[in-house]
Amino acid sequence: MANPRKKGQSAQSSASLASRTQLIEAASDLMIERGTTDVTLSDISIRSGVNAALVKYYFGNKAGLQMALLRSRLAPGMAQLQHLAAMSASPLDKLRIHISGIVATYLRYPYVNRLMHELVREDDSYGKMIADEIARPVLDLQCAILEEGAALGVFKPVDPMMFYFHVIGACDQIFHGRYQLKFLFNVEEIDDDLRRRYVDHLYATLTHGIVIQNG
Amino acid sequence: MANPRKKGQSAQSSASLASRTQLIEAASDLMIERGTTDVTLSDISIRSGVNAALVKYYFGNKAGLQMALLRSRLAPGMAQLQHLAAMSASPLDKLRIHISGIVATYLRYPYVNRLMHELVREDDSYGKMIADEIARPVLDLQCAILEEGAALGVFKPVDPMMFYFHVIGACDQIFHGRYQLKFLFNVEEIDDDLRRRYVDHLYATLTHGIVIQNG
Repeated sequence: MANPRKKGQSAQSSASLASRTQLIEAASDLMIERGTTDVTLSDISIRSGVNAALVKYYFGNKAGLQMALLRSRLAPGMAQLQHLAAMSASPLDKLRIHISGIVATYLRYPYVNRLMHELVREDDSYGKMIADEIARPVLDLQCAILEEGAALGVFKPVDPMMFYFHVIGACDQIFHGRYQLKFLFNVEEIDDDLRRRYVDHLYATLTHGIVIQNG
Repeated sequence: MANPRKKGQSAQSSASLASRTQLIEAASDLMIERGTTDVTLSDISIRSGVNAALVKYYFGNKAGLQMALLRSRLAPGMAQLQHLAAMSASPLDKLRIHISGIVATYLRYPYVNRLMHELVREDDSYGKMIADEIARPVLDLQCAILEEGAALGVFKPVDPMMFYFHVIGACDQIFHGRYQLKFLFNVEEIDDDLRRRYVDHLYATLTHGIVIQNG
């Protein structure tokens, strides 16, 4: 027979989990719909049907909710990083899958980068958290790919720090600079075709450059 | 003999120019010192010794002052773009000078990019202004370099839009992601050596890629 006290606790904690999830989903939906991270707790509360006071209870403050949102959205990508590192594929294939994964995440959650920058500005402890939890696993994977490629005689020696900023900045820019997409190129939406062409360009250029080489 | 009315007007307009310049310089200094664009009109007024009400008079509002700051800081770079397009140098040399110029500007005025993104979020008309005045001349130069390189049989065919986002994002990221520099790589300051190494990496990778090619 179930212990009634335990049952009560578990019901309570699953209600708590549901409210937390509702708050996170509401914040994500509002940020996508409005194209901005500038969403108030009151908006999130109304959309989710969860009392705004519970944000403080579950997440400490708005920044805590934003950090939880980041974690929940980037979790699949983080799992993919682990999987990719262990995969039996060539360093070139791993690099392509990695670039494609970053671009796909930015396309799906266009607010992710802005949110990171806002949290970093909010407090240095978020900078450390984001660096440790999100940036370091990306860097570690890139280091492993670069080392593997160098060991196989496929890649030149590359400084992983330079490579890291180059890849992340390049993947990010088409999303971060959407107004340039609109006013310079007359493109209103990043669709799957544009996403694929951008990944193709980044992969081709990072690996082989734009200069015609004989060989 | 000078027309006294004209003389009076000219004295007035040079005082006005001085106040405008003082406001712009104060805003720039404060943003660099504090490492943030989050500087109030009252701070700018105190630092410059110019009455805050004059911001409204000269620039319309805070965003107008920020746009004037951007224009004044990027003017030398814009002039260099014109100069570079007309230079008799190889497309490869032009590309290296171009990358080096962007990185040098970001290093000198680290707030420039954040300011652009804030203005764009403020109002779409700023997005159009920034795209037309700042981004388009950059794109035009890159198109000219890519076309020249292709015509000489040096460059592969490259989509200028993809190339534009790739180059700008890569140049920007090491500055925009300073907290990653700090927490991932233990680097507190971007000095001239790091700047040079980053430009070398970007140029080498964009032109020849990381893959070892025989030829």
